[in-house]
Amino acid sequence: MASQSDSSNNLSLNTIGENPYVGETPSSALDSWLTPNSLFYVRSQFNYPDINDEEWSLKIISSKNSKNFNLNDIKKLPKRTLTVTLECAGNNRADLDPTVSGNQFNNGAVSNAVWSGTPLNAVLETIDLHKNVIEILFEGADTGATSEGKDPEPYLRSLPIELATHPDTLLAYEMNGEALPIEHGYPVRLIVPGWYGMAHVKWLSKITTLEEPYSGYFQGEKYVLKYKDGTKSPVQEMQVKSTITSPSNNMTLKCGTTNTFKGHAWSGRTTIDKVEVSVDRGQTWNLATLHGPTESYSWQPWTYQWTPELTGEHRILSRATNKNGTQQPSVSVWNELGYQVNGIKSVSVQVVE
Amino acid sequence: MASQSDSSNNLSLNTIGENPYVGETPSSALDSWLTPNSLFYVRSQFNYPDINDEEWSLKIISSKNSKNFNLNDIKKLPKRTLTVTLECAGNNRADLDPTVSGNQFNNGAVSNAVWSGTPLNAVLETIDLHKNVIEILFEGADTGATSEGKDPEPYLRSLPIELATHPDTLLAYEMNGEALPIEHGYPVRLIVPGWYGMAHVKWLSKITTLEEPYSGYFQGEKYVLKYKDGTKSPVQEMQVKSTITSPSNNMTLKCGTTNTFKGHAWSGRTTIDKVEVSVDRGQTWNLATLHGPTESYSWQPWTYQWTPELTGEHRILSRATNKNGTQQPSVSVWNELGYQVNGIKSVSVQVVE
Repeated sequence: MASQSDSSNNLSLNTIGENPYVGETPSSALDSWLTPNSLFYVRSQFNYPDINDEEWSLKIISSKNSKNFNLNDIKKLPKRTLTVTLECAGNNRADLDPTVSGNQFNNGAVSNAVWSGTPLNAVLETIDLHKNVIEILFEGADTGATSEGKDPEPYLRSLPIELATHPDTLLAYEMNGEALPIEHGYPVRLIVPGWYGMAHVKWLSKITTLEEPYSGYFQGEKYVLKYKDGTKSPVQEMQVKSTITSPSNNMTLKCGTTNTFKGHAWSGRTTIDKVEVSVDRGQTWNLATLHGPTESYSWQPWTYQWTPELTGEHRILSRATNKNGTQQPSVSVWNELGYQVNGIKSVSVQVVE
Repeated sequence: MASQSDSSNNLSLNTIGENPYVGETPSSALDSWLTPNSLFYVRSQFNYPDINDEEWSLKIISSKNSKNFNLNDIKKLPKRTLTVTLECAGNNRADLDPTVSGNQFNNGAVSNAVWSGTPLNAVLETIDLHKNVIEILFEGADTGATSEGKDPEPYLRSLPIELATHPDTLLAYEMNGEALPIEHGYPVRLIVPGWYGMAHVKWLSKITTLEEPYSGYFQGEKYVLKYKDGTKSPVQEMQVKSTITSPSNNMTLKCGTTNTFKGHAWSGRTTIDKVEVSVDRGQTWNLATLHGPTESYSWQPWTYQWTPELTGEHRILSRATNKNGTQQPSVSVWNELGYQVNGIKSVSVQVVE
């Protein structure tokens, strides 16, 4: 029979934490535009909930009325498919100096998948949305204590009404053509294209209209940028960023031989304008070639050809600029909880004769 | 633990033939824009070849010189990613009347995946392409006898030089973010966007430049449209077609309740201009809504809302028109080997009180 030792099928997630399980996409799978379900990074606040197919329903609650949707009700609504990159707000946290507590992610808490579901607005349209509604609150079926000794509470996050009713905000029930795996929110999760992972509430159980802003634990205490000067701001849209997926760190390259460097770049709800590569520690920059799919909400593949002419250690850097002109920063802005770590990260290579 | 009886993960291919294995995508998976690797239809001429990773290489042979590429050599070339729908030339063969021999496919010999590889032209550029070269010949590592008593021979197909050097003709080594599964041509297959499946040669082993047209068994005898009037023509680009994936045949619908019909439409290298739906056996037609991704080479999802007002049997029909104005025919053109079966296919529903 065929041996497939070279195949990515044998790969698995790099475990970062247990109870709840947290895993990063392995480096060798970050090269692909699409991430297979089994290699898509996993981050949850609590253990996976028990979902009973017969009993499960999604409750929609407004001040005037409420409705229940089972999975078939949701599947009967108009279907929408989008390719969306998700990045954990704590991706690359391990790069911060001084270090901060939390899951020590390297660069694998980011993945890309094709999501299908119905626009959230298709269910919101079935209830009477009062004109005073300013936010929509989402509750997951997963529960736990947010600190020791506390009573268990569900995972809760809200979205502003404008974003909640946007046609690209989805109640997703399919991931890469399959039913959502349990670790990715079976049977239905929220997809908020361009926002960090914490907004894409998994295992959705309840949706409530709000006439006042929500400020619970996962919005008021966690997922807040707490800067050194005492200022704070909420984590929302994914910031402009690029990664180098090839070469890997400490790889040996041959002098005079052409090498193809590869990577991805992304920037929330904005597309990528350009990616530049430096092989001299950031003194000079050259344009990389953008190729493959260019979609609103999914990462942009890039390549760069380099023929080294000098032996010794070289540092390869990449930086992305989005269509609004915002450039990836040279250094990440340190913050207490370690979010939005999007500074330029170099890869070291050894060039030999 | 979570029960996922509703999940598509439990599905498998509908077996159409064995030795070599032939399987159709099950109806319930045809609804998804992206087909998971495990549910992508399988059609081969011969049994899967033995591939030895260490020994495998792709030979490129021209009249002047030849080259060998191993998998790493190919992966170092520029990478390109495309979402491409593949349809077997014999899809829907079972619908022909009078019946013809061959695999009796219903409507599941069509699937959609994200393919990554390098443009074929990236390897052609490394050899000296003589100006007299008019075709490129592709050889698979799979072999067998094309009729009883004959010696085994490899699967061979050619492409015109213009199409072979097109930047979207790929040497693909990834399918939906994973290494190609063995049944889909591991380690490298040809992807010819918009052409029927037989052109996408699997398990590529040899590529040869030709200065005369190729007319071997799989091009001169098989994959030829042989019409009743004696005329013949080669099977090449996928013809304009649409399918209804929901409702399923003989489903019961409730009078006065709104139903969402769903399906896909595709047309070779041309995008879809419109899909129309008829609920009165083709007397009147109404526009369906196109939604989700609109890509050059992948099928186009469509939906249509219908509220039945009369009880009894109804027939639902869909027809696609491509951007060139070519409309899906009402009736497939019968041909001896049963290819290009793209006539309108109705779905019957029972409407009850």
